Amino acid sequence: MAADVDIREVGPRDGLQAEAPVSVDDRVRLIEKLIDAGVRHIEACSFVSPKAVPSMAGAAEVMARVPRTSGIRYAALVPNLKGAQMALEAGVDELTVTISASETYNQRNVKMPIEESVAQIEQICAAAAQIPVDAIVSCAFGSPYEEVPPRDVVTLARRLESDGATRITYADTTGMATPPLISTLAAVASSIDGLHLHDSRGTALVNAYAAVELGVRRFDTSIGGLGGSPFADGAAGNLATEGLAYLLDDAGYETGVDLGRLLEASALVAGMIGHPVASRLAAAGAP
Amino acid sequence: MAADVDIREVGPRDGLQAEAPVSVDDRVRLIEKLIDAGVRHIEACSFVSPKAVPSMAGAAEVMARVPRTSGIRYAALVPNLKGAQMALEAGVDELTVTISASETYNQRNVKMPIEESVAQIEQICAAAAQIPVDAIVSCAFGSPYEEVPPRDVVTLARRLESDGATRITYADTTGMATPPLISTLAAVASSIDGLHLHDSRGTALVNAYAAVELGVRRFDTSIGGLGGSPFADGAAGNLATEGLAYLLDDAGYETGVDLGRLLEASALVAGMIGHPVASRLAAAGAP
Repeated sequence: MAADVDIREVGPRDGLQAEAPVSVDDRVRLIEKLIDAGVRHIEACSFVSPKAVPSMAGAAEVMARVPRTSGIRYAALVPNLKGAQMALEAGVDELTVTISASETYNQRNVKMPIEESVAQIEQICAAAAQIPVDAIVSCAFGSPYEEVPPRDVVTLARRLESDGATRITYADTTGMATPPLISTLAAVASSIDGLHLHDSRGTALVNAYAAVELGVRRFDTSIGGLGGSPFADGAAGNLATEGLAYLLDDAGYETGVDLGRLLEASALVAGMIGHPVASRLAAAGAP
Repeated sequence: MAADVDIREVGPRDGLQAEAPVSVDDRVRLIEKLIDAGVRHIEACSFVSPKAVPSMAGAAEVMARVPRTSGIRYAALVPNLKGAQMALEAGVDELTVTISASETYNQRNVKMPIEESVAQIEQICAAAAQIPVDAIVSCAFGSPYEEVPPRDVVTLARRLESDGATRITYADTTGMATPPLISTLAAVASSIDGLHLHDSRGTALVNAYAAVELGVRRFDTSIGGLGGSPFADGAAGNLATEGLAYLLDDAGYETGVDLGRLLEASALVAGMIGHPVASRLAAAGAP
């Protein structure tokens, strides 16, 4: 059955990146477990310097070992053209690139101005050719450093599209989104294709709910709610996959995901990282 | 300015009851701080046996020492007629009583069948005479022990009203509510007057949001999200006052509450109980 909502699982990349390094064996095992739970779209790794991000070392090995069953799409984050070429050689199905709508945040995160990031993304899109490139626009609902007007966010998104980005995912990088801010961005952008929400302020699920009501049907989520948060270190990361799947199941949306098996994947990753995950549903279990 | 939404702060009672005992001095100081933040409706204490619930000892002393400024309403939980008489002598403005819509839960929680609880509430309502009695119907969205059909929940609520209860508050005691379940109960009951939500599965805020959309305008909340959870011990209690106030502020509802001062009250109570509160907004701060 086709899923009503596209859940892209980012735990193996965005989630584990924030943790102490987990072995390639375990990262492959987690991906297999997520597939077993019905997940079909996975950000599996990132092709970044293993010196800069030791937890993401072995990206090509991860890609060589994950199941390549039909219908399963693997995304990889790439920071530049070199990373994109490595990802393409490794056979990924989709590239993700990030850029911030907040100039200061972009400078601090990737040490270059927004303009330079746009130019890099243009190169990456040209190299990608046959596979989609998803541009994740961070700080789309606010930045700790400066005002980020929705019109500027959408203007940046349009530029990225005209430079070759296949899809735009708006990211609430520091947990500043609220239902009215999502509604405002959706109005300015005409519609929101995909959302990447963070739970820094405990609002990820209510924001997802409000977004579903607005017609958003694509979300990044992370098993257990794994992921870094610039505010509440270790306590609150991405929107938890199990939390969104539970809410959507209950509301009658088809996600293709089996909640019980997803909770097993959440328990598995908690064992791998050696501490409980942030998801309260994972702690309490399904009713 | 009149508040659009009535927030009843239950931290000093439902919240602190789940913690190691906090002194009367500190409980009064917390209530003063909450009032300073604009809170006007507070469940301040419960008139239960101090042997059975040591953390609620000194209820009359709490009531004797809290500010009795005009416009501030104090509720107290009473388990029986004797407790009600003590609460009335102590000058509370409102009584809260609890009863479960789940027979097994009621038996385990108060060691009597639902029928006996109904009879006790009838006695309490007769004794209360001049002040409102709010009947909190627990397990209104499900019970870990048995099916609880919405029609049975509403039938119980109607009986309590005809026995003298002034208001009904439906409680999601074990965190089983979801937006569709709230919508269903609202349909069966014609409308929901008040809700008491728990965050055991990380759904308290999304449930509150869905309820506000359905027209619910009265909520129990607990500063910091304090409160016991039968599932995730210490990790997830009541809907956090600061979480709801933040969401409502942002959506343009008047609550009368100052979020900054509320976060100070949350930090104060964290110091009193000696561990961080569950609220992620409290950890991250307002944007």
